[in-house]
Amino acid sequence: MSSPISDAPAYQGGTAVQKLAIVNLHELEAEAKRILPPAGFGYIASGSGDEWTMRENLAAFQRITIEPQYLSGVSDPDLRVTVLGSNLPMPIIVPPMGSHGLAHVSMEEGTAKGAEAAGALMVAATPANLSLERIAAAKPGAKWFQLYFPSDLGFARELLQRSEAAGYTAIVLTADTVWASPRETNLRNKFTTAGSGLGRGNVPLAGGPVDTRDLRFAKKALSWGDVDFIHKNCRLPVIIKGILSPRNAQTAIERGAAAIYVSNHGGRALIGAPASIAVLPRIAETVDGRVPIILDGGVRRGADVFRALALGATIVAVGRPVLYALALGGWMGVQSVLDYLRDDFALTMKIAGTQDLRAISRDFLSPLYS
Amino acid sequence: MSSPISDAPAYQGGTAVQKLAIVNLHELEAEAKRILPPAGFGYIASGSGDEWTMRENLAAFQRITIEPQYLSGVSDPDLRVTVLGSNLPMPIIVPPMGSHGLAHVSMEEGTAKGAEAAGALMVAATPANLSLERIAAAKPGAKWFQLYFPSDLGFARELLQRSEAAGYTAIVLTADTVWASPRETNLRNKFTTAGSGLGRGNVPLAGGPVDTRDLRFAKKALSWGDVDFIHKNCRLPVIIKGILSPRNAQTAIERGAAAIYVSNHGGRALIGAPASIAVLPRIAETVDGRVPIILDGGVRRGADVFRALALGATIVAVGRPVLYALALGGWMGVQSVLDYLRDDFALTMKIAGTQDLRAISRDFLSPLYS
Amino acid sequence: MSSPISDAPAYQGGTAVQKLAIVNLHELEAEAKRILPPAGFGYIASGSGDEWTMRENLAAFQRITIEPQYLSGVSDPDLRVTVLGSNLPMPIIVPPMGSHGLAHVSMEEGTAKGAEAAGALMVAATPANLSLERIAAAKPGAKWFQLYFPSDLGFARELLQRSEAAGYTAIVLTADTVWASPRETNLRNKFTTAGSGLGRGNVPLAGGPVDTRDLRFAKKALSWGDVDFIHKNCRLPVIIKGILSPRNAQTAIERGAAAIYVSNHGGRALIGAPASIAVLPRIAETVDGRVPIILDGGVRRGADVFRALALGATIVAVGRPVLYALALGGWMGVQSVLDYLRDDFALTMKIAGTQDLRAISRDFLSPLYS
Amino acid sequence: MSSPISDAPAYQGGTAVQKLAIVNLHELEAEAKRILPPAGFGYIASGSGDEWTMRENLAAFQRITIEPQYLSGVSDPDLRVTVLGSNLPMPIIVPPMGSHGLAHVSMEEGTAKGAEAAGALMVAATPANLSLERIAAAKPGAKWFQLYFPSDLGFARELLQRSEAAGYTAIVLTADTVWASPRETNLRNKFTTAGSGLGRGNVPLAGGPVDTRDLRFAKKALSWGDVDFIHKNCRLPVIIKGILSPRNAQTAIERGAAAIYVSNHGGRALIGAPASIAVLPRIAETVDGRVPIILDGGVRRGADVFRALALGATIVAVGRPVLYALALGGWMGVQSVLDYLRDDFALTMKIAGTQDLRAISRDFLSPLYS
Repeated sequence: MSSPISDAPAYQGGTAVQKLAIVNLHELEAEAKRILPPAGFGYIASGSGDEWTMRENLAAFQRITIEPQYLSGVSDPDLRVTVLGSNLPMPIIVPPMGSHGLAHVSMEEGTAKGAEAAGALMVAATPANLSLERIAAAKPGAKWFQLYFPSDLGFARELLQRSEAAGYTAIVLTADTVWASPRETNLRNKFTTAGSGLGRGNVPLAGGPVDTRDLRFAKKALSWGDVDFIHKNCRLPVIIKGILSPRNAQTAIERGAAAIYVSNHGGRALIGAPASIAVLPRIAETVDGRVPIILDGGVRRGADVFRALALGATIVAVGRPVLYALALGGWMGVQSVLDYLRDDFALTMKIAGTQDLRAISRDFLSPLYS
Repeated sequence: MSSPISDAPAYQGGTAVQKLAIVNLHELEAEAKRILPPAGFGYIASGSGDEWTMRENLAAFQRITIEPQYLSGVSDPDLRVTVLGSNLPMPIIVPPMGSHGLAHVSMEEGTAKGAEAAGALMVAATPANLSLERIAAAKPGAKWFQLYFPSDLGFARELLQRSEAAGYTAIVLTADTVWASPRETNLRNKFTTAGSGLGRGNVPLAGGPVDTRDLRFAKKALSWGDVDFIHKNCRLPVIIKGILSPRNAQTAIERGAAAIYVSNHGGRALIGAPASIAVLPRIAETVDGRVPIILDGGVRRGADVFRALALGATIVAVGRPVLYALALGGWMGVQSVLDYLRDDFALTMKIAGTQDLRAISRDFLSPLYS
Repeated sequence: MSSPISDAPAYQGGTAVQKLAIVNLHELEAEAKRILPPAGFGYIASGSGDEWTMRENLAAFQRITIEPQYLSGVSDPDLRVTVLGSNLPMPIIVPPMGSHGLAHVSMEEGTAKGAEAAGALMVAATPANLSLERIAAAKPGAKWFQLYFPSDLGFARELLQRSEAAGYTAIVLTADTVWASPRETNLRNKFTTAGSGLGRGNVPLAGGPVDTRDLRFAKKALSWGDVDFIHKNCRLPVIIKGILSPRNAQTAIERGAAAIYVSNHGGRALIGAPASIAVLPRIAETVDGRVPIILDGGVRRGADVFRALALGATIVAVGRPVLYALALGGWMGVQSVLDYLRDDFALTMKIAGTQDLRAISRDFLSPLYS
Repeated sequence: MSSPISDAPAYQGGTAVQKLAIVNLHELEAEAKRILPPAGFGYIASGSGDEWTMRENLAAFQRITIEPQYLSGVSDPDLRVTVLGSNLPMPIIVPPMGSHGLAHVSMEEGTAKGAEAAGALMVAATPANLSLERIAAAKPGAKWFQLYFPSDLGFARELLQRSEAAGYTAIVLTADTVWASPRETNLRNKFTTAGSGLGRGNVPLAGGPVDTRDLRFAKKALSWGDVDFIHKNCRLPVIIKGILSPRNAQTAIERGAAAIYVSNHGGRALIGAPASIAVLPRIAETVDGRVPIILDGGVRRGADVFRALALGATIVAVGRPVLYALALGGWMGVQSVLDYLRDDFALTMKIAGTQDLRAISRDFLSPLYS
């Protein structure tokens, strides 16, 4: 298997394919760091600015405490959930992430195969190393396509039509990374993909290499009009990713968003952004059940899935740990992470005292402060 | 005396029998760590997940400050309290803990003898190394029996009847550990009791060894109907242990609970659970004096006993320090800890300015925040 | 000059007599630690329990921020204040502290001479190394006498009458240390004064040595009736020291207290007590100007004096830094500390924008939280 | 070029003139520390007292989180702002700072040239190494003059008239440093400018050297009457610098202030002062748009500029990083810092979703707590 970075032959992602014995998801980071090239690891692990938002994603979860209802006769929680027509076995999905080749030689095919084995919906990303068709082939089950909206409307239309044809069932429009925020780790590592094949899976345009990582191909002054363009050129529902404000959520619904994806891009987008779990309660209040809510940012345990659902999320996504597991164990590593999180969430439900996803509400939480 | 872990002859708990000069209860942990095998010490000391709840049990106490009433003419505080018909010399008891043989060769007999010497009520645990009858023989005074409700109803009935016959005066039904939460320290230590005699004091079932530590014998979908079963098969009052929610407390009282035991199992049960002292005020408000409230989790000083009583607890339990003291000094160590805590609590009362347990109220505390 | 600890000839307090160049008061602790015997230093520096209250005394000040009023035309602040008939040049005094011989061979005479040179009122302590008469001789100016109320009423009457005769103008009744709280540092150092002359300046009773440090001579069930006794046997106003509760302050005033002394004994008394500055606002609201308020605990800068006065204190006391300065520079060290704090407070007033002590109010503070 | 400190020939500021590759502004401090003499670096870097306010300036910004409005069709933010008649290309200015010769041999000329290149307004300081005329010559564009009000009214009048003649368009009256707060770092470094030429650019009085750093020439009991004096002797608008209180802001406006400059002098003035960003919301509410608001203290990123404007500031100033950049790269370093901050702020606006400065409001922030 060739390197995902054709012009950087020295780059070497993980090659192992194995199940992982997971104690907790935090430990995967240190393990992945040991085997990945520093610049590639740094690209995955880092956040924007001083990484306050990235850290706050974790810290904000711990301020939310769960008050269990014991002796509720719970045995087998039903984790199934239907989102935008997809019947999912669990409310945990794989979010869009670029260039899985940084983690493992199997690139997105490894992630897709692992997610499929775990029964998890996966969101394929525009800046993937592999084309959306190859990813779709490795992921027969539930999948969405993440779109960085191209400035070339013909290419935009092409991506939408290819996605639909390949079996993706929703478009996830990334709204928060039209411009890239400074990632200091990358600056220090002089991380660059210019001239490489990194992330070029979907952008094999004629006329030479295109570097999707710096989003040169993407439209900058993105607006709700561009969402209209998607609706006109694609029958798939459109999810707006990156929402951190009730006001923005309200506008999104008014402009036809099929779902609200609450995220700060893993602390990689706006410097000064709040933890996604911190804004969820106010956003959920605004959404008021009109559309599903997806949340990512700091989900590391079953308790975090429970907290997010209790505060209004329909499903959650887990990102970096999936890439670390891909690095450490290929598709089997990815499956290990998703199985672990599913089991830990089911355990949380059993202990907290409900087997019904829809019953998970703020009634199970201590009063929130600040 | 044989090892409590018959198939693990190398295991060696403490053997000393001596009084302990106690500066504070925190220091006992480091001292016990020096003499106990790592896996056994880790089993006692650790909590579930990242141990946030375990640490928060301690931190939450410090946020509660006591406002003394000086010149109140206090000299000899009366620490006596009557709970469920038991006249106790002090509102401090020994909570249910499994497998005291991990700490000391005298196993639960050591703890029982020390508690008796200090005049403290002790709760014997289902997963003890010694049978409930042997523990009862070593503890003529006040004692309760902790029940992990067995899935075998005949065995459940047998345990209840044996408890009643042995002189236990209440059943403490553990509601929070029907399923075991991941204990990462144990996972790293590969701690296991499978195939050993650990904790088999009460479960000598025919047909081979039963490992009570992983609760394989216990009923999983525990419900209030099972509480009804206890009431039907046993005349003893039933205390529900693990309550962390006002709603759960209300249900418990409606279903006949004789007392509410506020606990997060020393931070070993639900990941994401609040500190027990943090939820006590709201639970006490709901209970509103209808039944006694027992609290454990982080009690280390007389001031903590005072804080808990001021916020609505009737009595408190101190756990890990008792096992550390058992490891370090056998029954005399246990007595040292209980005497220390009693004296420190009496001192707190004298300084705070009351000699009447019932007068300890929120009037002695600074206003609570968050 | 003989050692203040007659039976412990090896003990050696400081001997230097010199001015100190003070950068801040915190640094004096480390400097004094270098020259004092560990047990004596530990006795001065430590607090009760885990020293949470001692640390909180400092931390709570920093949460209070001052909002200056610039361009107010301030030049020469008037620091004079009259308290219980004493005209003081500044609202900073020396609180009662025992056994100054632990710090310096000049014992309380050094402190008295330094306080007199700085114009500061000094409170002489019952457990001094020197008799109240010797201290009075070294401190012609303003002085109060601190009383640990003796169980021997004859001795109590004698102390009161001696105080009055020696020129003390108020009795400071310590209410918070009728029973000693555990001081873990002292326990580890096996610090003891038994059999020594330590602190025996005022208790030269017939029949052998009396150890005042462990308060064996003091009455235990102290009550407001004992305050009545003082009033009957002494014409001096009585200040109640150790108040940390509005309720206790209200009772004190009703029982004739001439002033309220808000203090947690430098974090050495009740374990779990709040910072004194944290309770001051509510106490000042209750006192409502009926009597003066003295505060100690954590005052280290002019800003702290300002904060305390803004929240309702009439005067403040600074303790440990005075003893450290005594150790390092004898009476000249004491004067250096008091001069430094006076100057720093005057500077704070000038910058904050007022030259009138009485104008210092919450109008100069940011709104308080928690 | 001669040393700015004529009597201290050994002093050597930076000499390099180069662009800086800036990852973040925090790192410049460590880099400047490597090349500057310790006393000079310490003078720039330190704050008053224990530097709590200096640290809080940074910490308080992080508690304010930005809630972006994505898909707003933003492309080219318009950063232009008009303040007191000056049309500025961006709301970021260089605040008054003394003695730039401590940083670089080009002294204030370097800063002026760099600010001019970046299009930033600069505030020249009374205690500059170079005369206000030389600074003005190096800064043809927007500039204000900072005044320490001299006790010699003739000299005051002279400075005002020279400022006006040199093309400065506003007077910034520093109200918070009439008396110098203790700077412990300087005390430890025995930093002194006595007898040197440091900061004597504007005070070449007959009769020998004048040390402006210790403000010996400045009037002490500064009052609103002195502001009247400025108005009478100068046609320029007067900005009051150092405001930290709504009450003080209200008075300033009533007394003719043309703008309110919210600042705690980089944590170098009043010990115990709040972070400037922490008091901004209440001050902005009082000002209510009547005059512009300038803020400095802790601005290090575009997100900080955005936060300050959202809470009511019209423009912000960035101080220490400019001096560090001057030390490291002369005028090109200064330009690098200002360009970086402008670009980072423009990026924040684009990501947050507005291209209109006036639209930046609390609608873009999470609710504020404490």
